Amino acid sequence: MQRVGVAILGLGTIGTAVARALQEQHDLIAERTGLQLVLRAVFERTPERAARANLDPDIIATDLATILSEDGLDVVVEVLGREQPAADFMVRCLNDGFHVVTANKEALSKHFAEILDAARNAERAILFEASVGGGIPLLVSYRQILATNRVTRVRGIVNGTTNYILSQMASGGTAYADALVEAQRLGYAEPDPTGDVEGFDAAYKLAILASLMSGRHIKPDQIQRTGISGVTSRDIDDARKRGGVIKLIAKAELSDHGDLVLSVAPEFVPNDELLAHVRANYNAIEIVGDRVGPVVLSGQGAGPLPTASAILSDIVEAVRTGAAANPAFPVASPR
Amino acid sequence: MQRVGVAILGLGTIGTAVARALQEQHDLIAERTGLQLVLRAVFERTPERAARANLDPDIIATDLATILSEDGLDVVVEVLGREQPAADFMVRCLNDGFHVVTANKEALSKHFAEILDAARNAERAILFEASVGGGIPLLVSYRQILATNRVTRVRGIVNGTTNYILSQMASGGTAYADALVEAQRLGYAEPDPTGDVEGFDAAYKLAILASLMSGRHIKPDQIQRTGISGVTSRDIDDARKRGGVIKLIAKAELSDHGDLVLSVAPEFVPNDELLAHVRANYNAIEIVGDRVGPVVLSGQGAGPLPTASAILSDIVEAVRTGAAANPAFPVASPR
Repeated sequence: MQRVGVAILGLGTIGTAVARALQEQHDLIAERTGLQLVLRAVFERTPERAARANLDPDIIATDLATILSEDGLDVVVEVLGREQPAADFMVRCLNDGFHVVTANKEALSKHFAEILDAARNAERAILFEASVGGGIPLLVSYRQILATNRVTRVRGIVNGTTNYILSQMASGGTAYADALVEAQRLGYAEPDPTGDVEGFDAAYKLAILASLMSGRHIKPDQIQRTGISGVTSRDIDDARKRGGVIKLIAKAELSDHGDLVLSVAPEFVPNDELLAHVRANYNAIEIVGDRVGPVVLSGQGAGPLPTASAILSDIVEAVRTGAAANPAFPVASPR
Repeated sequence: MQRVGVAILGLGTIGTAVARALQEQHDLIAERTGLQLVLRAVFERTPERAARANLDPDIIATDLATILSEDGLDVVVEVLGREQPAADFMVRCLNDGFHVVTANKEALSKHFAEILDAARNAERAILFEASVGGGIPLLVSYRQILATNRVTRVRGIVNGTTNYILSQMASGGTAYADALVEAQRLGYAEPDPTGDVEGFDAAYKLAILASLMSGRHIKPDQIQRTGISGVTSRDIDDARKRGGVIKLIAKAELSDHGDLVLSVAPEFVPNDELLAHVRANYNAIEIVGDRVGPVVLSGQGAGPLPTASAILSDIVEAVRTGAAANPAFPVASPR
């Protein structure tokens, strides 16, 4: 049976979940895929995090060079979060001949062209299923549709925190501020909720989807962005009277002139659409292809278990398919 | 650029759509995947169908041996429909060293173990995305989830004809017989609607999903099956009063004792589930994994364009991934 050496960069919530899943899922994955995934090295600079993860201390290192010199390493999982050093690390791992799997939407969306170029030159896989839609098998579906369709629109609910808040406001008549506090209490929202409620997280994800759709690097700051902090109970009531709901919708749409129109904003969604019925912290994305018509995927967009599940799938896919799994069309930075 | 020779078995609605899509999508697929798909041979015994398809008569043959002796052939698309000779033809194509792509749920569900064994022995791909859910990227998603999850339940609306009829009964107060006539007029239902309305089509699809879930060959006749011809306007009204709808639900579920419980039957679905809001001739399938939680995929489950789109994706996947794309776990016939 083929052994696959894995390194994890970062022992945050996701990295710790991946380390645990590699142990717990080892036998299932071996049985289903014929691959034995083995954790070989972990990058983590915070001693408390390293200690808490309950791993063999010998495999933990505080510099990337030590990680990459490990024997038998095949795939690096980047789950550091934030833009840097994550983006630079991914490029370095690819250049050194390793497949890279990431859940890092910020680093990826801001450095998409650079990271894809590195993967192409090194003939290594860069896979990022967990970066958009968590455990939903979104990108594998999107890739299948893109192979044989002209995609004219991608839109959806890509942030679970804001969907939870808007769902609470709609079902319980809760005010925005109270729903936010409740989301924080449940761990759905960060202590500083700006990244979610002002639409930055959704814009990172949309930039990735739009880049894949258009074949060029769309950066997050090219997206018109409005958060949900201005949505009032009155807006929610008005939407209900019109037969619908307010959702934070991320959208990339080809105009009649062939331009790509990009936005993240609270939008009215009528009740006859599936997206109107996506509740709690769930995500849903609609992909419209000229042949397949509209396809909707929904599921839990975040959380350690679903995200780690997507990362493990990507590790398997990276080993099986290699660089052929990467987006095949050119992605050049527009500026 | 790599050239890929394709043969089509059967010029029915789907086969004709595949032949047309191979021409229309040639350049897009080449750009996106680096593969040039070329139609090399077509099996069709009915002269009128062959003439209507407007293809070079030299590539049309009436016996399989002639097709398989064609130079430069890589992938055979089986869209004959029905159980035989389709199942025997698939096995023969695999034995002779060709990848097989099929949309034929009846032949596949009844001969799943035999066809998978042939693919495994010949080290060729057998791909069947179009056989369940038409153009919805269902099986590629399912495969990703299965690689890293224990799937405890698959359920959904897998037949567009019956969903159209039930949706008409619910929205228009139409009686079953009138909704069926309307579905026939729109081309959603066959002149003999038995295969759809009595749940045979749904049972074929569920057998395929359940076989993938359990790792053994579940045959359609092992599934408890009730159609929709007994559903009355009164049932629909009662469901509405209880806050839901009636849908024809195909379901494979692991019981607490680890048995697989299988059924196709009209069921009450409460309005707080996405499946309740799947309208017209759309399909939707919910896959529940122990890590990813519930994932729903929805889209047009049938129709020549979506189905041909899925078949073309499978051709690309067969060439790229080969036999590694096949279900990796053993599938042995239980009887």
